[in-house]
Amino acid sequence: ITTFAHLPYVHCLANESEDVEKYDIAILGAPFDTGVTARPGARFGPTGVRQGGIRIGAEFSWNVYTGRNAFLEGFRVVDCGDAPLTFLDNTIALKQLDKAHKVISGRKANHTGYTVPRIITLGGDHTTTLPALRSTYHHWGAVSVIHFDSHIDTWDPEVLGGGLSHYAGVNHGTFLHIAHEEGLIKNTSIHAGIRAPMANKKYDLKNDKACGFSILTARDLDKFGTQGIIDKLKERVAGSKVYISVDIDVLDPSYAPATGTAEVGGWTTRELLTILDGLDGIELIGADVVEVAPIYDNPGETTVLAAAEVVHSLIALMAATPVNALS
Amino acid sequence: ITTFAHLPYVHCLANESEDVEKYDIAILGAPFDTGVTARPGARFGPTGVRQGGIRIGAEFSWNVYTGRNAFLEGFRVVDCGDAPLTFLDNTIALKQLDKAHKVISGRKANHTGYTVPRIITLGGDHTTTLPALRSTYHHWGAVSVIHFDSHIDTWDPEVLGGGLSHYAGVNHGTFLHIAHEEGLIKNTSIHAGIRAPMANKKYDLKNDKACGFSILTARDLDKFGTQGIIDKLKERVAGSKVYISVDIDVLDPSYAPATGTAEVGGWTTRELLTILDGLDGIELIGADVVEVAPIYDNPGETTVLAAAEVVHSLIALMAATPVNALS
Amino acid sequence: ITTFAHLPYVHCLANESEDVEKYDIAILGAPFDTGVTARPGARFGPTGVRQGGIRIGAEFSWNVYTGRNAFLEGFRVVDCGDAPLTFLDNTIALKQLDKAHKVISGRKANHTGYTVPRIITLGGDHTTTLPALRSTYHHWGAVSVIHFDSHIDTWDPEVLGGGLSHYAGVNHGTFLHIAHEEGLIKNTSIHAGIRAPMANKKYDLKNDKACGFSILTARDLDKFGTQGIIDKLKERVAGSKVYISVDIDVLDPSYAPATGTAEVGGWTTRELLTILDGLDGIELIGADVVEVAPIYDNPGETTVLAAAEVVHSLIALMAATPVNALS
Amino acid sequence: ITTFAHLPYVHCLANESEDVEKYDIAILGAPFDTGVTARPGARFGPTGVRQGGIRIGAEFSWNVYTGRNAFLEGFRVVDCGDAPLTFLDNTIALKQLDKAHKVISGRKANHTGYTVPRIITLGGDHTTTLPALRSTYHHWGAVSVIHFDSHIDTWDPEVLGGGLSHYAGVNHGTFLHIAHEEGLIKNTSIHAGIRAPMANKKYDLKNDKACGFSILTARDLDKFGTQGIIDKLKERVAGSKVYISVDIDVLDPSYAPATGTAEVGGWTTRELLTILDGLDGIELIGADVVEVAPIYDNPGETTVLAAAEVVHSLIALMAATPVNALS
Amino acid sequence: ITTFAHLPYVHCLANESEDVEKYDIAILGAPFDTGVTARPGARFGPTGVRQGGIRIGAEFSWNVYTGRNAFLEGFRVVDCGDAPLTFLDNTIALKQLDKAHKVISGRKANHTGYTVPRIITLGGDHTTTLPALRSTYHHWGAVSVIHFDSHIDTWDPEVLGGGLSHYAGVNHGTFLHIAHEEGLIKNTSIHAGIRAPMANKKYDLKNDKACGFSILTARDLDKFGTQGIIDKLKERVAGSKVYISVDIDVLDPSYAPATGTAEVGGWTTRELLTILDGLDGIELIGADVVEVAPIYDNPGETTVLAAAEVVHSLIALMAATPVNALS
Amino acid sequence: ITTFAHLPYVHCLANESEDVEKYDIAILGAPFDTGVTARPGARFGPTGVRQGGIRIGAEFSWNVYTGRNAFLEGFRVVDCGDAPLTFLDNTIALKQLDKAHKVISGRKANHTGYTVPRIITLGGDHTTTLPALRSTYHHWGAVSVIHFDSHIDTWDPEVLGGGLSHYAGVNHGTFLHIAHEEGLIKNTSIHAGIRAPMANKKYDLKNDKACGFSILTARDLDKFGTQGIIDKLKERVAGSKVYISVDIDVLDPSYAPATGTAEVGGWTTRELLTILDGLDGIELIGADVVEVAPIYDNPGETTVLAAAEVVHSLIALMAATPVNALS
Ligand SMILES: [Mn+2]
Ligand SMILES: [Mn+2]
Ligand SMILES: [Mn+2]
Ligand SMILES: [Mn+2]
Ligand SMILES: [Mn+2]
Ligand SMILES: [Mn+2]
Ligand SMILES: [Mn+2]
Ligand SMILES: [Mn+2]
Ligand SMILES: [Mn+2]
Ligand SMILES: [Mn+2]
Ligand SMILES: [Mn+2]
Ligand SMILES: [Mn+2]
Repeated sequence: ITTFAHLPYVHCLANESEDVEKYDIAILGAPFDTGVTARPGARFGPTGVRQGGIRIGAEFSWNVYTGRNAFLEGFRVVDCGDAPLTFLDNTIALKQLDKAHKVISGRKANHTGYTVPRIITLGGDHTTTLPALRSTYHHWGAVSVIHFDSHIDTWDPEVLGGGLSHYAGVNHGTFLHIAHEEGLIKNTSIHAGIRAPMANKKYDLKNDKACGFSILTARDLDKFGTQGIIDKLKERVAGSKVYISVDIDVLDPSYAPATGTAEVGGWTTRELLTILDGLDGIELIGADVVEVAPIYDNPGETTVLAAAEVVHSLIALMAATPVNALS
Repeated sequence: ITTFAHLPYVHCLANESEDVEKYDIAILGAPFDTGVTARPGARFGPTGVRQGGIRIGAEFSWNVYTGRNAFLEGFRVVDCGDAPLTFLDNTIALKQLDKAHKVISGRKANHTGYTVPRIITLGGDHTTTLPALRSTYHHWGAVSVIHFDSHIDTWDPEVLGGGLSHYAGVNHGTFLHIAHEEGLIKNTSIHAGIRAPMANKKYDLKNDKACGFSILTARDLDKFGTQGIIDKLKERVAGSKVYISVDIDVLDPSYAPATGTAEVGGWTTRELLTILDGLDGIELIGADVVEVAPIYDNPGETTVLAAAEVVHSLIALMAATPVNALS
Repeated sequence: ITTFAHLPYVHCLANESEDVEKYDIAILGAPFDTGVTARPGARFGPTGVRQGGIRIGAEFSWNVYTGRNAFLEGFRVVDCGDAPLTFLDNTIALKQLDKAHKVISGRKANHTGYTVPRIITLGGDHTTTLPALRSTYHHWGAVSVIHFDSHIDTWDPEVLGGGLSHYAGVNHGTFLHIAHEEGLIKNTSIHAGIRAPMANKKYDLKNDKACGFSILTARDLDKFGTQGIIDKLKERVAGSKVYISVDIDVLDPSYAPATGTAEVGGWTTRELLTILDGLDGIELIGADVVEVAPIYDNPGETTVLAAAEVVHSLIALMAATPVNALS
Repeated sequence: ITTFAHLPYVHCLANESEDVEKYDIAILGAPFDTGVTARPGARFGPTGVRQGGIRIGAEFSWNVYTGRNAFLEGFRVVDCGDAPLTFLDNTIALKQLDKAHKVISGRKANHTGYTVPRIITLGGDHTTTLPALRSTYHHWGAVSVIHFDSHIDTWDPEVLGGGLSHYAGVNHGTFLHIAHEEGLIKNTSIHAGIRAPMANKKYDLKNDKACGFSILTARDLDKFGTQGIIDKLKERVAGSKVYISVDIDVLDPSYAPATGTAEVGGWTTRELLTILDGLDGIELIGADVVEVAPIYDNPGETTVLAAAEVVHSLIALMAATPVNALS
Repeated sequence: ITTFAHLPYVHCLANESEDVEKYDIAILGAPFDTGVTARPGARFGPTGVRQGGIRIGAEFSWNVYTGRNAFLEGFRVVDCGDAPLTFLDNTIALKQLDKAHKVISGRKANHTGYTVPRIITLGGDHTTTLPALRSTYHHWGAVSVIHFDSHIDTWDPEVLGGGLSHYAGVNHGTFLHIAHEEGLIKNTSIHAGIRAPMANKKYDLKNDKACGFSILTARDLDKFGTQGIIDKLKERVAGSKVYISVDIDVLDPSYAPATGTAEVGGWTTRELLTILDGLDGIELIGADVVEVAPIYDNPGETTVLAAAEVVHSLIALMAATPVNALS
Repeated sequence: ITTFAHLPYVHCLANESEDVEKYDIAILGAPFDTGVTARPGARFGPTGVRQGGIRIGAEFSWNVYTGRNAFLEGFRVVDCGDAPLTFLDNTIALKQLDKAHKVISGRKANHTGYTVPRIITLGGDHTTTLPALRSTYHHWGAVSVIHFDSHIDTWDPEVLGGGLSHYAGVNHGTFLHIAHEEGLIKNTSIHAGIRAPMANKKYDLKNDKACGFSILTARDLDKFGTQGIIDKLKERVAGSKVYISVDIDVLDPSYAPATGTAEVGGWTTRELLTILDGLDGIELIGADVVEVAPIYDNPGETTVLAAAEVVHSLIALMAATPVNALS
C-alpha cells in the first residue's frame, strides 16, 4: 500500500458531507492520458511518482541545502489517492477531476491559521492542470503560473486538434489557452525551459503573449545561470499568488526519459531543483508534476526518482510560506 | 523505409479519383488506441508488426508445413501504410478509418478473376475491427467471424463504458456488440482462446450468444487438441464468408507480453499457427491482428515476431482461396 | 493506493486490542529477501503481485472455467498491507512476521459459521512460509503441505548455510526442514514441479522423505497429464487440512523470469492454473505465493500477471470450501 | 572471474609445447558473429552462457531425471576461456578458431582409458561449428551431425552470400554445406526443430539431402511426442560417432529471445532437454551451443539460463559414454 | 512507413537513367556495422534515427533559438531510404555505398540556383563516412572535416586491424586515415569531443596531425565554453567547404547509451546542439550521424531522440547556406 | 573469463603459505549486499564493473588528459577475482572479507622500492569499505578518507538499524562511524557530493563531525567549480595517507541508475573524473568503487561503463604516486 513519501492516506475524496481526518497539503493523483498527441502512458504517472517517492519519509527529511524538513513545519501533508477518472470520455473525466479538486480543497484545513488546504496534483497528462486551476481560482482568484515545460501549451484549440471537433480541442497542448480564456490566470505568467519547435513564429508567440506568458528558453540557463533564472521568475510573478506546473519534459530525456513528448537539450535535475528551491518565499497556492509515463522509464527508475524529488521541493515551498484564501 | 515483409508500398489511400498501382491483398495500419480500458500503446502496433516482419520476404518464403509460398500464388500483396487517424477524438478517428477501408477496397483488384482487393488490418486496439467489418459488409454482406481473443468483446456499450456517455460506449470491449447491431456479422460466429473473466455469467453469456457467437476456451485446446479446434472452427463457419480477427492477447503473455490487457494461461505461438494453417480452404475476405503494443515488448521482440508470423499465415489463407465479391 | 484486486484495505495489523473491520480471507505482504542464496529482490514481491492484480476486481470475476466468482461466495476478502519487516536482521524479521500472522489470524472472522480468518501471504523469499506455518499450526494443528517449487527446500540447516552459523542456517532452502522439526507439518506432504539438482541423492532424498514429503517432478506432468497430477496431489493429502505454497519458480523462466533462482524446464501458467483449479474441494487453511522478484520481470510484467492469477485461484479454493479451526 | 559452472580454468590455449593441467572435456568460447545475415550480437554468447551457468556447480548437480551427476563420472571437465578471434576479417578468424580446436584437442586426456579430450564450443554464430567439425574429423573421422535448429544451414554458398564474393559465401547459413564438401560429415545426419522458410522447395531440399541430412520439423514433435523424436534421432545416427550442434533458435523466442534470427513456433526448454537427455548412449565426440546473443535477452536472463542447461545436458551425454579416438 | 521527419520518400536510388522527383537535400540510410571493433548493432541505426524523428515535421518546426524553419527555406528535403548493403563482405558493401552516393548526388538538384544535391547519411558504423567523402570529393574537391567523436578514427590500417589482413584494415577506426591517403580531406580538419585513450601518444598524435587534424577534447568545453568551441571550429575550417561527421559517441553514454564504443565523460545534448547551431554560416556540403545502435537504447529512446535532433540541426545548417559545386 | 581491463588473473587469495605471481596493485571483488537498507543487487557489482571495463586494456590506455598510461608506470596491476563471501550471515561475511584483505595485502609487492601491495575493492555495498580500512590501518595506520557519496554514511549504529539488534547496526550507512570508533580514520576526512536528507540536523551533523568529516555538497560544485573542489579536497587531507571511497551514487541517476539508493541532483561523470584526475599527487593507499547494482542498469550499460572508468582513474592515481608502508 504505497503512498507518496509514506504520508498518511486520507479518504479526502469521500462524500463532502462525510467527515475525514484534517489536512493542509494534499497529494492527489490524476491518472489520465487520453488528452495526449504522442506517446500515451501518463495514466500510470501517479503510481510511478509514488513508487519514486518510497525512499522519502518525514522522519528522514532534513534537507542539506535548505536546512529544513518540509514535513515538520507545522502543516499536515497527506496523500488522497487517485481521483476516479474514466479513460473512455475526456469530457466526463475532466468533470470528475473538477469535482475531486472541489471536494478536497473544500474541506477545512488542519492548521488553525490557514483555512483552505492546498493540492499538489500528480498527473496524468498536462490537461489535468486545467481542473486544478479552476479549483485555485475558486479559492484564490486568478494566479500567476510558473510553467516549467519544453512546450508552451498555449496553442489555440482551433489550431491544435480543434479542426477536428470541439472535443479534440481540449488537450495537453491547449489547456493554458483555455485557462486564459476562462480567466483563471494572470498576465504575469511565465514559461521556463522552453525548447520545442512551434508551428508559426508570428502567430504562436503573439497568441502565447496574449495568454499572459513570457518565455525563458532552456538555453537561457546557460546565459543567466540558475540564480539569474530564479531572479527573473520571482520578478515576473512578484505580488501575485503563484501556481507551479512542472511538465517533467522540462528535464532532458537523459534525466526523464519516461514521458510522452520528450525533447532533447533540456535541463538537468540538479539545475531544476536548484531553481525550485530558490523560489522560496513565493505564495504558492497549488502545484503539479505531470506527463510522467513510467512505462518508458529506465530499469533504475531514473524519471520517477526525479519526479518525486520535484514533488518534495514543491511541498517544501508550500510549507515555507502559508497562504490564506480570499475571504 | 520499412514495409511489412518488404512488400511494395502503394499509395492506396490516395484520392479515389487518383490511379495507383493495382493490388489484391492490402496491408493497412490502423494506429489507434484511445478506445482501450487498460494499458495504452497499440497506436504503435502497425510499426511494431512491420518491424517484426523484416525477416520475411517473398523470395525466401517457401513454408515447410504448407509446402507453399504465400507471396507467389498469383496475387499481388502490398503495404498501404497507415490510415491517418487522430488520437484526440474517437468518433472522428473511426470515421477516418471507415474512409480508409472504403478507398482501399474500392479500387479494382490486380488479379483478373477476382474483383475486390482484400485487406489485412494491423491494429491498433480492437475497436479498429469495426470499420473493417463495415467495409467487408459493403462488398460481401454479413460474415462469420472467427475471433481469436482471451476476451469476448461483445459487451453491451450500456454496460462497458456506456454508463458514462455514448462516446465512451464505443470501445475495444464492445465493438462486436455494435457490429452485431449494425447487422455486419452472422449468427455463426465463434470465439477461440477465451479465458478472461466476465462480469456476470448469465447476462454476459446470453448477450454473447445473442450477438451470434459460440465459445472455445483456452483450455478447450487441452481437451480437443489443435486438430479438434480446427474442426470445430471450420464446422461453425461452414458455408459462409469468414473474417478472422486475431487479438494478440489470445497468446499467453510469455509469447506476447506486449499487449494492453494480457491474460495468463493462453496459447503458445506453435498452437496458434498450427490452428491458423489448419483453416486452409475457408473463404477469408478480411482479417486483422490487433492489440499489439510494442512498448511492452521484450528486448528480443518476442511479441512482434509472433504477430508478424500470424499476418504471414493470414496472407497464406487468403492466397490459397480467392473469393469473389457479391455482384 | 494499490491493493490486490482492488480489495478493501483493512488495518488488520493494528494493535490486537484495537477493533478493525472484520474479514475472512486476508492478503498479507511479507517484503523479505535476506534469506536467499542467489539473486535478491523478492522484497518487492508484494508490491509486484499487487501491481499484477490491478486488472482483477470483484465486479468482473466470473470465471469461465469454474463458473464461479471467488469474491462473491459469501466471504469477505481484504488486503492487510505489508508486515513491517527489517532487512537488517533475519532473526528479528521472522519474529516480526510471526507477530503479524498471530495478530491477523487472531481476530474473529466476519462470516458467522467460520471462526478463524485464513491468510494468503505474498512473499518475500520462501523463508516467509515458516511464520505462516507456525500460525496455521496454532489454529489448525499440523497440516499437509502441497509445495509447488522447482526446489525441494527441505535441506538441512547444517548443510545449507549452517556450516557458517546458526543464523545462516535459517533460509529459503531449509525452512521446510525447520517446519518439520517444529512439528508444523504432517508426513503426507508433497512437492510438485521439482527439477532443480541436488547435492547428494542418497542423503537429500532420504532427508526429504524424513521431512514428510513425496515428489512429483516437472516432467511427471508429461507422463500423467494435468488430471493425473491433480489426482496424485489430492490422494496424498486426503483427510488432512492443507497448506499450499507456490514458489513462482515452479513456472518456467519463460513464464516467470522475475525470480531469484529460476530453473529452466518448468511448467506453463496454463498447466499450473489448471492443476490449482482442479484441487477444488480440499480444506485449504493457508497459502502463499513467494519468490517473486519484480526487478527481473519483462517490460510487459509477465511474471507478476501470472503470480496474481495464482493468488486469484488460491482465493477461489478457500472460498469454495470453508474450514473451521480446531475448537 | 566467471567460468562455466565454476569449472576450473585451464590455459588450454597455451603454446602446444607448454604443459598445462590435464582435462577430458573442454568448454571453449568462440566469440564470433560477423558471419551472420541478421541481428548481430553472438560475439557475447560465451560470456552470456557462462553467466547463465553460475548457478550450476559440481557439488550440487545430482540430476533428478537421470539420477547422475555429470561432473562426478570420472572425467575432468574444464573451461578453456575464449579463443582469440578478430572481428575484422572472417577468413582470419576461422583460421584462429581452427588453431584453437587443434591445440585443445591435441593434448593428452586426463582420463587413462580415453585418449583425446572432447570439446563443447560456446558460440558465436553458427559458422563456428565449421572449425569444430574440422577438429573432430581429425581425431574421429567423418561424423553424423544431430543439428537442432529452426534453419537447415545447408544453403549453397553460391546462393546465400556467394553471389557477391567467395568471402561472403562462408557464413552461418552455409557452413553445413561446406562441411559436407570438405567430407567432414556423414550421410546419416539429421536436422531437428526445422521451421524457418526456404527459398525454393525443390532446390533447397534436394541440396539439403545431398549434404547428408533428413528433417524433423518443429511440429513433428506434436505428431510423434518427445519419445518419438528421440527414437528417430537415435535410429538415424545409429552406428556412427555423433556431433550435436544446438542453435539456440531451435527454442521458441518465448524461451530464447536472445538470438539473431529468432523463429516463432519453436520448442520449449522442457521439450528440448527431455530430448537431449533421451539421447543417452550415443557416442558424442563434440558439441556446441551457438547463436546466443545476450544483448536481446530478458532482464531475467531467460535465454542464457536455457543455454547453460543445454550445455549441462551435453556434458552429461559425454560423461555417460566415453569414446576413443581413431588410433 | 516511417521516413525521417515525415519527409517525402523519393526513390533516389533508382537506376541513373530513370527519372525521379527532384530534391536538394537527401537523407540516406547506410545500414552497415561489420566494420566495428566492439559492440555491433549500428546496422539498425537508420531505422532508429527515423524512429527518433517521428515527432519532427515541416509544419511544426519553427526553431525557438534560430528563429527559422529548416524545412521552409526553399530547399526540397527528402528521404531516399537505405542503400542496399550486404553484411557478408565489407569490400562489396563499401562499393555498394559508393554507388548509392554517386547515384543520389548525380541527379540534378530541384533548386534552380544550386546544382548538386547534398546528402546527410544515417550510419551505420563510422566506416560509412568513407564513401560519403569520396562522393563529396567528386563534386566539391577536398574538404575540411569537422569530426565530432570521442575517438580520433585516424588510426593507421597497418596498426588497427591491418596486421591481420588488408581486408581487416578498413574499419571504423581507420577510415579518416584512408580518406587522407585518398586525398579527400584538407589539412584544416578538426576533431571535437575527443576523450578515448590512445595506443601510443607519440605515434598516434603525430599520425593524426599528418592526416590533417587538430584536436579539441571533451574537457576543453569546460575551459572554453560552447562559444569558445564554436569560434575555434569556425577558425580552423575558415575558407574551405566543410563536411560534418557526428559519431553519436561524442555524447556522454547518459545521453547516448545506444552506441558501440561508448566513452564516459562526454558532452550533453544541450552542449552539442548549441555548438552545431553556432556553426551557422559555414559551407556545409555533406554530413552524417553514425554509430547509433538502437538495440542498446533506453526504453524511452534517449539516444535516437538525440540523434534525430542532430540531423535536424544539420539540415538547418545546409538550408541556411547554399553551396554550389565546382563547375 | 573476464578480468578488469584484461589484467592478468592472479590467485592472490590462495593460502598465505602458497606462492603466487607478484603484484603491486590488486583489484578485489567483494560481492556482498546484505548490509543494504533499500534496493539490493550490489552483490553483482564486481561482475558488472569488470564487464564495464572490457573496453579498457594496457596496450591502448594513453590518456589524452593526463598524458600517461596508468598500466605502464612500472607497477604490476592484477585482478584477484572475488573474495568468497556468504550471503547468509553478515558477521561471517565481513570476517571473510577481512581475511581476504589480509592475505592479499600481506604478500610482498612486485616492485622493488615499494613493499606492500595496494588494493582497489569493487563492491558490494558500502559496508565492504570497513574491512578495507582495517587492512590499510594494519599497514599504514589511520588514514584520511575522501568519501564520494550522496550520503554521509556515519550514522550511529544505535540509530540506523541498531535499535533492532547489534547485528543490524553494522550496515552501509554506519560503517564510517564504526571505522571511526575502531580508530581507523583520521579527523581530516571529507565527504564530497553529499545531497541525501538527514534525520536530524543537529545530531547527524555533530555526530558526523565527531567522526572526523567535513562536507562538500553536490551543489557546492556549482559554487566552486571542479578546480575549487579539487583544491578543498587536497587541502583537507594534506600531509596524510589517503583512502578514496567512491559510492557510485555520488553520480546522478542519469549517469548511474544502477545503484540501490539513487539520489537525484548528483554529479556528471565528466565532473567526477575531472576531480579524480585532479587529485594527482596524493598518497593513495587504498580505494574502492561500491554500490554498483547492475540489475538496474540501462541496456547500454551506462553505470558500469562509468564505474569502470572511475576504477581506471584510481589505478592512475596509485601508479602516479608510490607509497611505502609503515616500517
Ligand atoms: Mn511538455
Ligand atoms: Mn506540457
Ligand atoms: Mn483481448
Ligand atoms: Mn480484443
Ligand atoms: Mn524455488
Ligand atoms: Mn522455494
Ligand atoms: Mn538458426
Ligand atoms: Mn543455425
Ligand atoms: Mn567514436
Ligand atoms: Mn567514430
Ligand atoms: Mn550512497
Ligand atoms: Mn555509501
